[in-house]
Amino acid sequence: MNPPSGEFEFIESLRKRVSASPYVTLGIGDDAAILTANPPQTLVTTDMLMEGTHFAIPPASPRQVGHKALAVNLSDIAAMGGCPTTAFVSVALSRKYPESFREELFQGIQGLADRFGVALAGGDTNSWNGPFVISVTLLGTPVKSPVLRSGARPGDWICVTGSFGGSLAGRHLDFIPRVAEALELQRRVTLHAMQDVSDGLAADLYHILEESGVGCRLDAQAIPIAEAARLSRDSRTPLEHALGDGEDFELLFTLSPEEGQRLLRTPPFETPIHKIGEITEDRTAWLVQSNGTPIPLPRLGWVHAL
Amino acid sequence: MNPPSGEFEFIESLRKRVSASPYVTLGIGDDAAILTANPPQTLVTTDMLMEGTHFAIPPASPRQVGHKALAVNLSDIAAMGGCPTTAFVSVALSRKYPESFREELFQGIQGLADRFGVALAGGDTNSWNGPFVISVTLLGTPVKSPVLRSGARPGDWICVTGSFGGSLAGRHLDFIPRVAEALELQRRVTLHAMQDVSDGLAADLYHILEESGVGCRLDAQAIPIAEAARLSRDSRTPLEHALGDGEDFELLFTLSPEEGQRLLRTPPFETPIHKIGEITEDRTAWLVQSNGTPIPLPRLGWVHAL
Repeated sequence: MNPPSGEFEFIESLRKRVSASPYVTLGIGDDAAILTANPPQTLVTTDMLMEGTHFAIPPASPRQVGHKALAVNLSDIAAMGGCPTTAFVSVALSRKYPESFREELFQGIQGLADRFGVALAGGDTNSWNGPFVISVTLLGTPVKSPVLRSGARPGDWICVTGSFGGSLAGRHLDFIPRVAEALELQRRVTLHAMQDVSDGLAADLYHILEESGVGCRLDAQAIPIAEAARLSRDSRTPLEHALGDGEDFELLFTLSPEEGQRLLRTPPFETPIHKIGEITEDRTAWLVQSNGTPIPLPRLGWVHAL
Repeated sequence: MNPPSGEFEFIESLRKRVSASPYVTLGIGDDAAILTANPPQTLVTTDMLMEGTHFAIPPASPRQVGHKALAVNLSDIAAMGGCPTTAFVSVALSRKYPESFREELFQGIQGLADRFGVALAGGDTNSWNGPFVISVTLLGTPVKSPVLRSGARPGDWICVTGSFGGSLAGRHLDFIPRVAEALELQRRVTLHAMQDVSDGLAADLYHILEESGVGCRLDAQAIPIAEAARLSRDSRTPLEHALGDGEDFELLFTLSPEEGQRLLRTPPFETPIHKIGEITEDRTAWLVQSNGTPIPLPRLGWVHAL
């Protein structure tokens, strides 16, 4: 509703440029989009990013912000083991930025959408004097049963893709969400639980434990720590960064030891997979330190600074 | 992502309170919602409302803002002739408001959702120091073929529900979207084109004309003018308010004269329906004044003041 003056032309230009999609019967330009939805289930996720909270401009460019706004949603669909299909983008554009802002923003969205075959099927364009806000809603289709947070079982291996910590030094603006990896995992093995790491490895592992009604023993030495976390020059250790920084957008998943062994023996993709611990029936979460002593897993995470 | 401290508890409380829905397999609480999608098509619309642009607090209450944020989306699904099913709500809560704000906001959303059987199936809760922003994405199901803006045909009657003008004096915060009326229209007659009036009656009629490649003759005397437009004490006439104010959220539709006559003979609901003109093959839009003289339909609308 209420596109500001000049926005009609922009929306018209988007309408002509967005890629055709087998999922979209009618895209941008009417009161609502019409999607063909033959699959028996649809996945839906939504994330809002606000200037000054989730990014600052600079250092982030409009293109990076567009990329990130779609990427965080792609990461959520990946974490359900789904294939992303259509995106809807609402923005409150800040009048302090030039007209080129929205074009670059769109290029950031479109580049990543094209990479994963996602159609930009609708949205809402507004302008105001406040900071820039973008909200993306992404739809997807499960390729097998969706993988929930609640499916972890005692004895499961806890595995992760990639490495953790220090994302806010820059990686959070450019990361490629693990869509391809999640789909490949779904093809190769039976996953019991999965989520993406946005709030922090410890915080997000707690989500799985609480939803599944289980505990864990996490092996501190096995946690892959990102270069940026090792380079950090503050009072926190690299492990604390890895457990608490968040915005890693890696996959955190559990599966049976047999499936886990099979996965690590023949890795299905280049992105590294590490086993970082095991699920326990006892509902406590332990972090086994490098000296062998277990301590309660600290509840790091959630609070982000720029 | 990144719910601020205290938000987890709020989300957990929402999760327990939202109504069960046959459309939702998994709602709030995982990376994405899972919807059962048996119908062959899905409608999707999204609208973002910003404090200071689409409403001010006060005079609007948090409950009214929640109501409006869902209502504008319901109006879009209604305008496609669809039945709304699931809603996803992202918010940037302003730290200047007390905690009760989000509770009242939610009550405004939930009250209207329950009225139309819509399930709140997911969202994203953020806090910041900026003004309040809310973005709603609403899914729906067409009951027959979706009614597009592009289907108007020469000879069609142009009809509207309700009355126009002066909505920003208060009606825009409390309106009941014409969901029930649109579904009843779909049952009774074959609609050629439809949209809801948000940008202004003239502006939105131009959308239909342009998408359909047709023109019109609008009868100034037949346009139903709202009481609030007659009471306005500025330099514009009541008719100018009706054509240009916007945010009426009434239905604007076209249908064959035979269907139109049938509809007006036996009105299907209490909300008044008026014939306000006819679609012409000639692509010009005329407004026939009360003295019988046609003038080009002024392009009023789009620009809103509080």
